[in-house]
Amino acid sequence: MDKFKRQMDFLIEISKLKSIYRQSVYYEDGKIKRENDAEHSWHMCMYAVVLEEYAPKGTDITKCIKMALIHDLVEIYAGDTYLYDEKENKDKAQREAAAADKLYAILGEQGEELKKLWYEFEANESLEAQFANTLDRLQPLLLNYLTQGYKWKENKVHISQVMEKGNWEKRNADERIKKFVRDILEDSVKKGWLLP
Amino acid sequence: MDKFKRQMDFLIEISKLKSIYRQSVYYEDGKIKRENDAEHSWHMCMYAVVLEEYAPKGTDITKCIKMALIHDLVEIYAGDTYLYDEKENKDKAQREAAAADKLYAILGEQGEELKKLWYEFEANESLEAQFANTLDRLQPLLLNYLTQGYKWKENKVHISQVMEKGNWEKRNADERIKKFVRDILEDSVKKGWLLP
Repeated sequence: MDKFKRQMDFLIEISKLKSIYRQSVYYEDGKIKRENDAEHSWHMCMYAVVLEEYAPKGTDITKCIKMALIHDLVEIYAGDTYLYDEKENKDKAQREAAAADKLYAILGEQGEELKKLWYEFEANESLEAQFANTLDRLQPLLLNYLTQGYKWKENKVHISQVMEKGNWEKRNADERIKKFVRDILEDSVKKGWLLP
Repeated sequence: MDKFKRQMDFLIEISKLKSIYRQSVYYEDGKIKRENDAEHSWHMCMYAVVLEEYAPKGTDITKCIKMALIHDLVEIYAGDTYLYDEKENKDKAQREAAAADKLYAILGEQGEELKKLWYEFEANESLEAQFANTLDRLQPLLLNYLTQGYKWKENKVHISQVMEKGNWEKRNADERIKKFVRDILEDSVKKGWLLP
């Protein structure tokens, strides 16, 4: 029963992802609400399921979905780091590596596999990691657009910053996704939600 | 671009799952918070990933995860129906079928596949549906236990009701999962969180 107990302990511990709040917001009954990591992870998985056909040829979509499910778990201990916060981003990798060690240790050997999958996601080199990372950027971008650039306005973000941080010019992603991103960013500038 | 537009429209629409509140609760900074369907779906997927080895032999775990991701989407239009609400459960199937038609129509042909997968989950006949349904029962049960039977006490629930509604005696599930459920239910009775 020891392994089963570890597994249940892990499933209990990761429930905390529901209380890790992100910068992304959305409307609930007309009011702005902050998205949490569990909601984001679920939504990102749905992006993977629905947009599978735009993944690079040879992408293992199950692996992508598993990456999406676990990609933010380290934030339970390391917290959410805002993309545009230069200071917090300095020691992000170190904080998250320590968090991964602590969290996946609960699961023992099985945890090592999940930790490896998370490192693969972070390295952004495999096809699966690249597609998952594209969706991880696309999902909050769309939330921003649907809230009239709520966080962009708050942080006075320029279109060039979004393009650069997301590496949308050079990113190994399907042209339809890249065009969609350019279109909504340009529309956001036109509407005054994003600085030119 | 029409198919891509449908896909993005669908991904935008289903974001509403984050605002469908369930009966399950959990603690956030010591305060009781209601879980929503997006959080629940993510957590249930993690149960599938971590507990895969207890799925019946031959279970396609990717299919299970996809079922878990979409299994509550109909509640965006049909609402969450509490397990112990006899009145609401009377027309649940009808309300949810109408909701499925409306929601998956956004996606067109691709939506038909997802709708089929949801009906398979509901029918609870395939190995994948049975494992997904087991996890769908197990996850809220554990949340109840971790909040000292919060909803059980509120609704004066008896252990026999939980056992019957969850079909925990006859359910086609691994013995370790069934034993775990019996153990926490019996412990809950002992602690006065659940009626004997």
